[in-house]
Amino acid sequence: MNIDEAAEKIKNMEIRGAAKIAVFAVRALRDFALNVEAEDEFDTLISRAATKLLDTRPTAVSLYNGIHYVMKYSGITVNEKKESIKSLADEFIERAERANEQIGRIGEKRIKNGSTLMTHCNSSAALSIIKTAFRKGKKIEVYVTESRPRKQGLITLKELDDEGIPTKFIVDSAVRYFMKDVDMVVVGADTITANGTLINKIGTSQIALAAHEARVPFIVAAETFKFSPKTLHGELVSIEEREASEVLEDEVLDKYSHVTVRNPAFDTTPREYIDLIITEVGAIPPEMAYVIIREYLGYALEEFEG
Amino acid sequence: MNIDEAAEKIKNMEIRGAAKIAVFAVRALRDFALNVEAEDEFDTLISRAATKLLDTRPTAVSLYNGIHYVMKYSGITVNEKKESIKSLADEFIERAERANEQIGRIGEKRIKNGSTLMTHCNSSAALSIIKTAFRKGKKIEVYVTESRPRKQGLITLKELDDEGIPTKFIVDSAVRYFMKDVDMVVVGADTITANGTLINKIGTSQIALAAHEARVPFIVAAETFKFSPKTLHGELVSIEEREASEVLEDEVLDKYSHVTVRNPAFDTTPREYIDLIITEVGAIPPEMAYVIIREYLGYALEEFEG
Amino acid sequence: MNIDEAAEKIKNMEIRGAAKIAVFAVRALRDFALNVEAEDEFDTLISRAATKLLDTRPTAVSLYNGIHYVMKYSGITVNEKKESIKSLADEFIERAERANEQIGRIGEKRIKNGSTLMTHCNSSAALSIIKTAFRKGKKIEVYVTESRPRKQGLITLKELDDEGIPTKFIVDSAVRYFMKDVDMVVVGADTITANGTLINKIGTSQIALAAHEARVPFIVAAETFKFSPKTLHGELVSIEEREASEVLEDEVLDKYSHVTVRNPAFDTTPREYIDLIITEVGAIPPEMAYVIIREYLGYALEEFEG
Amino acid sequence: MNIDEAAEKIKNMEIRGAAKIAVFAVRALRDFALNVEAEDEFDTLISRAATKLLDTRPTAVSLYNGIHYVMKYSGITVNEKKESIKSLADEFIERAERANEQIGRIGEKRIKNGSTLMTHCNSSAALSIIKTAFRKGKKIEVYVTESRPRKQGLITLKELDDEGIPTKFIVDSAVRYFMKDVDMVVVGADTITANGTLINKIGTSQIALAAHEARVPFIVAAETFKFSPKTLHGELVSIEEREASEVLEDEVLDKYSHVTVRNPAFDTTPREYIDLIITEVGAIPPEMAYVIIREYLGYALEEFEG
Amino acid sequence: MNIDEAAEKIKNMEIRGAAKIAVFAVRALRDFALNVEAEDEFDTLISRAATKLLDTRPTAVSLYNGIHYVMKYSGITVNEKKESIKSLADEFIERAERANEQIGRIGEKRIKNGSTLMTHCNSSAALSIIKTAFRKGKKIEVYVTESRPRKQGLITLKELDDEGIPTKFIVDSAVRYFMKDVDMVVVGADTITANGTLINKIGTSQIALAAHEARVPFIVAAETFKFSPKTLHGELVSIEEREASEVLEDEVLDKYSHVTVRNPAFDTTPREYIDLIITEVGAIPPEMAYVIIREYLGYALEEFEG
Amino acid sequence: MNIDEAAEKIKNMEIRGAAKIAVFAVRALRDFALNVEAEDEFDTLISRAATKLLDTRPTAVSLYNGIHYVMKYSGITVNEKKESIKSLADEFIERAERANEQIGRIGEKRIKNGSTLMTHCNSSAALSIIKTAFRKGKKIEVYVTESRPRKQGLITLKELDDEGIPTKFIVDSAVRYFMKDVDMVVVGADTITANGTLINKIGTSQIALAAHEARVPFIVAAETFKFSPKTLHGELVSIEEREASEVLEDEVLDKYSHVTVRNPAFDTTPREYIDLIITEVGAIPPEMAYVIIREYLGYALEEFEG
Repeated sequence: MNIDEAAEKIKNMEIRGAAKIAVFAVRALRDFALNVEAEDEFDTLISRAATKLLDTRPTAVSLYNGIHYVMKYSGITVNEKKESIKSLADEFIERAERANEQIGRIGEKRIKNGSTLMTHCNSSAALSIIKTAFRKGKKIEVYVTESRPRKQGLITLKELDDEGIPTKFIVDSAVRYFMKDVDMVVVGADTITANGTLINKIGTSQIALAAHEARVPFIVAAETFKFSPKTLHGELVSIEEREASEVLEDEVLDKYSHVTVRNPAFDTTPREYIDLIITEVGAIPPEMAYVIIREYLGYALEEFEG
Repeated sequence: MNIDEAAEKIKNMEIRGAAKIAVFAVRALRDFALNVEAEDEFDTLISRAATKLLDTRPTAVSLYNGIHYVMKYSGITVNEKKESIKSLADEFIERAERANEQIGRIGEKRIKNGSTLMTHCNSSAALSIIKTAFRKGKKIEVYVTESRPRKQGLITLKELDDEGIPTKFIVDSAVRYFMKDVDMVVVGADTITANGTLINKIGTSQIALAAHEARVPFIVAAETFKFSPKTLHGELVSIEEREASEVLEDEVLDKYSHVTVRNPAFDTTPREYIDLIITEVGAIPPEMAYVIIREYLGYALEEFEG
Repeated sequence: MNIDEAAEKIKNMEIRGAAKIAVFAVRALRDFALNVEAEDEFDTLISRAATKLLDTRPTAVSLYNGIHYVMKYSGITVNEKKESIKSLADEFIERAERANEQIGRIGEKRIKNGSTLMTHCNSSAALSIIKTAFRKGKKIEVYVTESRPRKQGLITLKELDDEGIPTKFIVDSAVRYFMKDVDMVVVGADTITANGTLINKIGTSQIALAAHEARVPFIVAAETFKFSPKTLHGELVSIEEREASEVLEDEVLDKYSHVTVRNPAFDTTPREYIDLIITEVGAIPPEMAYVIIREYLGYALEEFEG
Repeated sequence: MNIDEAAEKIKNMEIRGAAKIAVFAVRALRDFALNVEAEDEFDTLISRAATKLLDTRPTAVSLYNGIHYVMKYSGITVNEKKESIKSLADEFIERAERANEQIGRIGEKRIKNGSTLMTHCNSSAALSIIKTAFRKGKKIEVYVTESRPRKQGLITLKELDDEGIPTKFIVDSAVRYFMKDVDMVVVGADTITANGTLINKIGTSQIALAAHEARVPFIVAAETFKFSPKTLHGELVSIEEREASEVLEDEVLDKYSHVTVRNPAFDTTPREYIDLIITEVGAIPPEMAYVIIREYLGYALEEFEG
Repeated sequence: MNIDEAAEKIKNMEIRGAAKIAVFAVRALRDFALNVEAEDEFDTLISRAATKLLDTRPTAVSLYNGIHYVMKYSGITVNEKKESIKSLADEFIERAERANEQIGRIGEKRIKNGSTLMTHCNSSAALSIIKTAFRKGKKIEVYVTESRPRKQGLITLKELDDEGIPTKFIVDSAVRYFMKDVDMVVVGADTITANGTLINKIGTSQIALAAHEARVPFIVAAETFKFSPKTLHGELVSIEEREASEVLEDEVLDKYSHVTVRNPAFDTTPREYIDLIITEVGAIPPEMAYVIIREYLGYALEEFEG
Repeated sequence: MNIDEAAEKIKNMEIRGAAKIAVFAVRALRDFALNVEAEDEFDTLISRAATKLLDTRPTAVSLYNGIHYVMKYSGITVNEKKESIKSLADEFIERAERANEQIGRIGEKRIKNGSTLMTHCNSSAALSIIKTAFRKGKKIEVYVTESRPRKQGLITLKELDDEGIPTKFIVDSAVRYFMKDVDMVVVGADTITANGTLINKIGTSQIALAAHEARVPFIVAAETFKFSPKTLHGELVSIEEREASEVLEDEVLDKYSHVTVRNPAFDTTPREYIDLIITEVGAIPPEMAYVIIREYLGYALEEFEG
């Protein structure tokens, strides 16, 4: 598979999920680099490939962080550079893969035996926490939201059912109704900004608001590569709006003259509604996003500071 | 159509909507009364018919208020009683029908030209306000929520489109995302309790919470017969839970071993999230529910106080 | 027992509790009136007796309301006046006694089966609700606060234990810790003002605050004669401060040179922390205090408006 | 005194108070180490002694931090190791002892002349701030809570009276009543977690809530060794529940059939109710707990990260 | 002075202040009526005069209420009508004049000895409360805001200085800074709506917000004729915007090309920031506005309900 | 210009604005140092000059930070010391000057096209953000507050008008009225403390409160040298109170006997009302103040830690 094919797979959403995209792109860039033959254009070709991958999802932070991680490569000869790229890429991939398991291990400690949880959409990091707690023998049950329009709640339902975890399925508008029965909300993250704002699947901020109102702890599971270095430099995260047909079939919409569909993919949750972010390097309050970016994503800041 | 048939139509939801049920039942009771022939069992037969109608939807306040309104009938001869029933029933029906138009007229004054509104589910009282404002030439646009699981938002969509009102359709989980663009939320009511709590379609309280957070006025359109006299006496309003299949098709649910569906039809919104209730007798703060019940629904209190 | 003896019993706290004081004083005034012989000084003697009783506890609203209720008496002859006083006094006493049972009956409807309640100090109206619910077969358990300094929680503990109600005893500082397990707080009232403020045993407002923070319903049980007509006219309720020795034994306090004890008997809870007031005439939001005063305590307003 | 004796003294609460326990245990471990003779089992013996000490109070963070500080020892020969242990232990002890005075010096700057303070229980770090301010000539007065069930407020009362500081003694339920007269609350800490949560004597969170409601600054005095490194890894702090007899004498409790006593020793205060934590290394917002742990307690993190 | 002259005086703000305008217009209408000679056009002429007066300040509620009060006149002969008008007008005038004194008497009871107050703009009802308290011997001091742009604070300053009341003058932007020293805020009202919203001088809502944040009681002094019957019928109160030159001299403004001045005369304060409204008929919570309108302004509702 | 002249210029406010003062004083100290001839008293003379400059505005944090930056100088010979001072001073000056431009560049990314902004007083850092956004072609408009008593809003008005930015000028008391139309508030800073509190021009905290209520982002533009290292050590920032005549002309004030003017120059905004601080090293949440001080102002901490 060449870079164009790889880029295409990300663009058309064949590859989905923040972590999976990052790992996939890093692997593609590594494989591309290892096969480059032209000696004197090496850096240019790598840059071009990196840019092509970045352009597939310009707002995806994990992709950005992954590619920049590899682009720290150094060396004098092309072989040294290839070596460096390979080593960086493998390191990133390995860390990303281990992060999920580490988040589960750290996060499950927050879950008390007998708890009722709520989750939204389908986050492998959030589910890692829930499953780890269950496997450790904790008696839990989980409210799963449908997560319209794409109904990723159904995927979560299946994953939890496969584990044998008792699950209650609800429509998105029933979140506040059941919040009084919930002991903790656990969700994933698309992006976390320098001031601790969470960008995640549409509906997340509404759940956070209802949890805050009821003083139910709201926990975010997020690998460090979900934190956005650019936001430290003021960059606003832009919210992608998806096609109307996810919400309303075209043939229904066509019947109307005055109707438009609005379909934002994500929303933003302010830091005061977030109790804790579980990363693979520890459980932190959202205000610490700045420190995480400085400590773990410094490499991705360089281009701004040169 | 006899009483049993009428009761059946309400029970199986052929007749739907709080106002429609009340009017339908009152009419059925009236027609039944006018046809009663047995002289000496008149009161007993009427009581039985009333009870039968009440039992179709034991939690429907408008039904309760409508039937009790007719049951105020008096008279010595059967003919006098029939006359009394007819007159009370016609009065109730006429008022109910006029209430919608009056609410529209009172409520539309709250809508400023150029406003963006949001509504939920399908409430004829709420839509009366929106349409009246539009017909008076005010330039408005309306966010309409899908209102899962039954998607009554689609009915609202059609009604507004027919009027030519620009409408934006969104999933229920996008409410908070768009709240910053909204100038006023207008919803209907299933029930209003003595302490100003609103019971309405699942999701309503979540919208109220998001409106409150953003300080967007949250307005309820409710005929006086939506106020619950029983709650003055402590009665809790019970929330009906509907069948799972509204949320998840049976064949999907059957595949799982640890999944249940929770499907409450309504939720409760506390009075501090409600700015104003528009009734046909004026725009009042929710705390005034007590006064409305005393002034307009005194007849329905009697059984408790005798 | 003459008026002076009766007054003394109230003053030295032999007779305690807002309801009991009122009934006791009303009875004393009635008995006094029935025995008055001097024809032409009748009104003067009654006024003097009423004043004497009122002066025993100038801040007790129930006493004020009780005495004023009797003082509505009318008549031309002394016999007519005696008749009028007797009838008013008996009416007040009977209503006061029935109120407790009515509050229990109305209030218990708010308690769901399986609930955990919390109560503070020792309020017969609040306990009426709790006991009625339990006697109706509802499975409940109750957190009882110690209620320092006088530890009235111990009296409550005994009353609930006698009923067989499972009870958990906690110190006053543990209220917030356990609030997350509580479904409803039920307390009594010393006074309720025209703007819906509750004056009650010290510590009440702290529980209300913790309940509000956790969104746990906070319910007040209060007979209508606990509402203060004077506050409609601006009067502030003054908070009595009791002797230091209730808090710290004199011999301990004497050892210190720079220590004073502060021992207020009551505190004030603002209306926004109160969900409902259960009176014998219905369950109302606190904002309705004004209407209750107008409707049920109008007689006690007259002196201001003449 | 050997290790077993030392452990026993901590376990039976002869040695009390977070700072005192840590210093005592560190000293015991040092003395033990200096007396070890067996050359080849040195490390094993030290580990065993450390574990024994840790097991006396598995939830005491200061103990954990103190022991881990000493366990950083290095060296090749036993003598080198002993030297290292001695030097680390002495360093920890000296720092702990100096911290109290430093906290007083930093914290007193926050107290304005003429202030009214409130404190809870008996914290030497909090009292260090109050006394330092008073000794610097600031005119202050202090509300002291009784701190049921063990009434440590009496110890605080005595300490402040000895200094000549005007003090007002109140029951725990009067906190909110007097909050309007208070300019600042100063309390100590049992533990501070990675996300800035305070664990302290039962009742603390209630005071924090009342202070927050009244916008009175709530200040925590805490040495850096009160911060919990484990919580960075998700660990929940468990709240010890003490015997019933602290709250209710056994002979009273025995009379009842349906009564249990709940007696948690601590409660948790969320970071949004804390204005500032005064440590010996500076005054920080609670969100900075993470940074304190990283900077000052890194040694205690190692076992997790190896 | 004829009707046109009277109308002109109101329009050009020679007559200012809600109460003064109402009394002035009522007097003008009465005098006009008493001088009408044309027998058969009497009603038409009165209506025309009333309309002319109403049109001078279409948003002034007190004017509306005053004129409608007089327009309740009845009678068969012109003389009877004149008599009726005279009697109604005199009654309104006398009540309006007495209301100020009654509000002072009721409101002063809320002020404790030794209090620090804050007031805004120049309200005679609010000052009536403050002065009455001072004259009763209460030791008070008052923060007075400048009240830009027209600086009515200077008038208040003079009135309080004349009384000998210690006063602190501050700019409008210093309100929050001093709020911690304030025990109560007392302001007047331009209008109060059916749902308890206060419309008053620009800046009022900001003071209310700061008072709410600091939990300082916020009290409104308002005669019953400040309550708006129209709002019960949904009517929105429109906020007058005054000329730019009040804020910026024309010659300054003329120098700029991209600058406009916005100068709203009033703002709106929601009911949750208002603790109490002091009217001449009692101290009520803002939610009671509905009841006040029903009870005291029923006459002004009639035109809507016919 | 010698040190005394320089000090005088700062004291009499000829030189104004936190950044300008710092740069001016640093330059003066540098020039003074370069001209010192006495070899053996060099350090003493420099210290004395530094102290003289610091004493001009003992509460100005930027001045403190600037002077301490230069005082890090080292060297053995006087020439080496001069060299060191020159180099440090030039570095500080250059950074200060570049910071403004960097803040503009980082901050403007937060401003969306079509936004309405609000600013207060006259902050060059805040205006740098606004102007940069406008120059980048973003369509914006700005509410400018008058900023009584010194009306610095007029300077801001002129600066924005010169740029061609559409501006709306309002009095300070109209802030809450217009907040619903505002998308973002941008202000400068006088000082930022270790726990993230903002000290800025009187009125700032009121705007922050109104923005918080309306959930409008509140952004602070602040160079790192505005952060106060001393506050890390508990130091409270004292608020300067200026002369009465800024608020009320002496001849007006003299007419009164009971009036005083209170005129604080600054107020304090708590961190929970601040969304983001834009510094030249990145956009951070206010809780990060501690980290900024540690990382960028460590030099100014030294004197405390020696």
